[in-house]
Amino acid sequence: MASNIGYATPDKNTPLAPYTFDRREVAAEDVRIDIAYCGVCHSDVHQARDEFGGALATLWPCLPGHEIAGTVAEVGADVTAFAVGDRVGVGCLVYWGDESQRGVSEEQYQNPPAIFTYNGKDPATGEVTLGGYSDEIVVNQHFVLRIPDAIPLEQAAPLLCAGVTTWSPLEHWNVGAGSTVAIAGLGGLGHLALQLAKARGADRVIALTTTPDKADDLRELGADDVVDMNDDDAVQAHAASIDFVLSTIPTPFDMRPYLSLIRHDGALVTVGMLEPIHEAGIDFGAVSMSRITIGGSLIGSIAETQQVLDFAAEHGIRPEVKVIPVQQVNEAFDEMVANAVRFRYVIDNSTLEQDRERAETLPA
Amino acid sequence: MASNIGYATPDKNTPLAPYTFDRREVAAEDVRIDIAYCGVCHSDVHQARDEFGGALATLWPCLPGHEIAGTVAEVGADVTAFAVGDRVGVGCLVYWGDESQRGVSEEQYQNPPAIFTYNGKDPATGEVTLGGYSDEIVVNQHFVLRIPDAIPLEQAAPLLCAGVTTWSPLEHWNVGAGSTVAIAGLGGLGHLALQLAKARGADRVIALTTTPDKADDLRELGADDVVDMNDDDAVQAHAASIDFVLSTIPTPFDMRPYLSLIRHDGALVTVGMLEPIHEAGIDFGAVSMSRITIGGSLIGSIAETQQVLDFAAEHGIRPEVKVIPVQQVNEAFDEMVANAVRFRYVIDNSTLEQDRERAETLPA
Repeated sequence: MASNIGYATPDKNTPLAPYTFDRREVAAEDVRIDIAYCGVCHSDVHQARDEFGGALATLWPCLPGHEIAGTVAEVGADVTAFAVGDRVGVGCLVYWGDESQRGVSEEQYQNPPAIFTYNGKDPATGEVTLGGYSDEIVVNQHFVLRIPDAIPLEQAAPLLCAGVTTWSPLEHWNVGAGSTVAIAGLGGLGHLALQLAKARGADRVIALTTTPDKADDLRELGADDVVDMNDDDAVQAHAASIDFVLSTIPTPFDMRPYLSLIRHDGALVTVGMLEPIHEAGIDFGAVSMSRITIGGSLIGSIAETQQVLDFAAEHGIRPEVKVIPVQQVNEAFDEMVANAVRFRYVIDNSTLEQDRERAETLPA
Repeated sequence: MASNIGYATPDKNTPLAPYTFDRREVAAEDVRIDIAYCGVCHSDVHQARDEFGGALATLWPCLPGHEIAGTVAEVGADVTAFAVGDRVGVGCLVYWGDESQRGVSEEQYQNPPAIFTYNGKDPATGEVTLGGYSDEIVVNQHFVLRIPDAIPLEQAAPLLCAGVTTWSPLEHWNVGAGSTVAIAGLGGLGHLALQLAKARGADRVIALTTTPDKADDLRELGADDVVDMNDDDAVQAHAASIDFVLSTIPTPFDMRPYLSLIRHDGALVTVGMLEPIHEAGIDFGAVSMSRITIGGSLIGSIAETQQVLDFAAEHGIRPEVKVIPVQQVNEAFDEMVANAVRFRYVIDNSTLEQDRERAETLPA
């Protein structure tokens, strides 16, 4: 009988269910991790339901999860950075796109692309990579992150995708002291972006929301101001006042009111919106008149992932998580699609054991 | 009888026709210019036909023209920089948005906006500004450019809008040695952008066109390569190879094939496309995966306008112009809308005199 267990689906119409399978043997550079928690990311829903398409079309079976926190259970002969018992994490990437990329600083932007934690092809086995909704994972040490003692494992999980995805553009565009920043979309990514921007020393951090009843909570998280994007007067009152809008809105949206907030030479950068076609309303007249730039950013590098973990420990950044047993993951998916949940669902992976008896063997 | 003459229209449905009117008296800081030539810009067509809308809705009467070249006829008491007989030009701007803006480095991006050469409100008279399809213009000396002796006046004209509009983003985004640049849209702006990018020392300059029968001409202008954007294989062969795409395409277009050419951290910047609504096809997945930025740029500053004139003189940049009598301007408009004309129509303003007898008084 296969030794590992995880929640997976063989096709886009079937809810996730328990399956057994075997992780690969630990090779010389590998680390085997006992997974304690795994965050539930919006991408997990898109991928399990095959909603991305294009280059991101789902490979089956799909076993999601790329916000993995746990402890080291075994290390390979050449592993120097980690020892059994270390508190560690794995984010969106588990290997380079090819061996020539060892040493590059931005693993996520190479060609061929780096191997995703799930929905990739494991170069060691040729099989589909399987993610963190499982009891264990085996990963090359370069892609293993050290989780600072100050961060509980369940809170570390969301930093590994949601955290670094918002951290990376704040780093790249040098957002900090001297900047007025706005965060659009205050869900799993946005509530972290708000805290990160504030802790980076931004002059003002403004939350842009379409659900103004969140305003008090957003102020508690550090927002200096909250703008209801459905209120034209409020939008008008903040016209041309913001240097950098970081949008975590996960689906196509009309960018015009957001762009109207940006001052000369400012930027709007979107993360986590990977739909192949976007019919945005963009007014290039307005964009040109303020020399605004619009961009996108993709997750973050391994170095940046370690950076955001260390920064979060130092500055007391705390993801708001709701720990659930893995058996509730399908309901969590539905809730995430239905609402903009402000907290992050995090699976308690110890609950997988309850399903070992009824689990079927994962189809190849 | 009014002393000045120009081609104007009282409404969007009437062709341009000769009218007489009076320029304001020369004030202390003013320069009166005898206009020798005026370039015909795509904006002139949009404005005369009231096709921009929004903040750029046309003020009537409309007397277009903002690529003005001539000689100084009279100077005010406080004018120090110019003397009668100097070869001078006027571009898109004739005054600051307000007096507090004296000394700013980017007149075109201020609020309130700088006063356009036509379709603005002259703060000295309260009346609509009237452009260069006329015999004379009176302009504050700050907005008067010096035309180097090496550039014939008719060739200087297009540099004052088309030239600086492409020069400004090349400056701002530091395009030069080390850059692979592509120019999209090879009309009045694009054929100058091609020459300017090449003369700035860009490693490679690539022309992106949908009319590949222009290829030989584009190579003569300096293109190292010409890509037919209707040829999917050609587009694919140049994927992710370009650092900076400068688009001079004047109407909304599907940006996706253009964005596919851009490499990691590259940019697409559009100029001269000021339509209020743009339904571009932008794939934010592709944008994010290469951290591409998309921006817009608006004309250029007065300092940049002088810079491009001096640079053009030094590097032998030559706008391809076709000089026409003012009586052909309405046909020129129609041709510009129908084709992507590669040269720039330039009006010989001495031909205005022929119409003085039949000209009516310009309505207020």
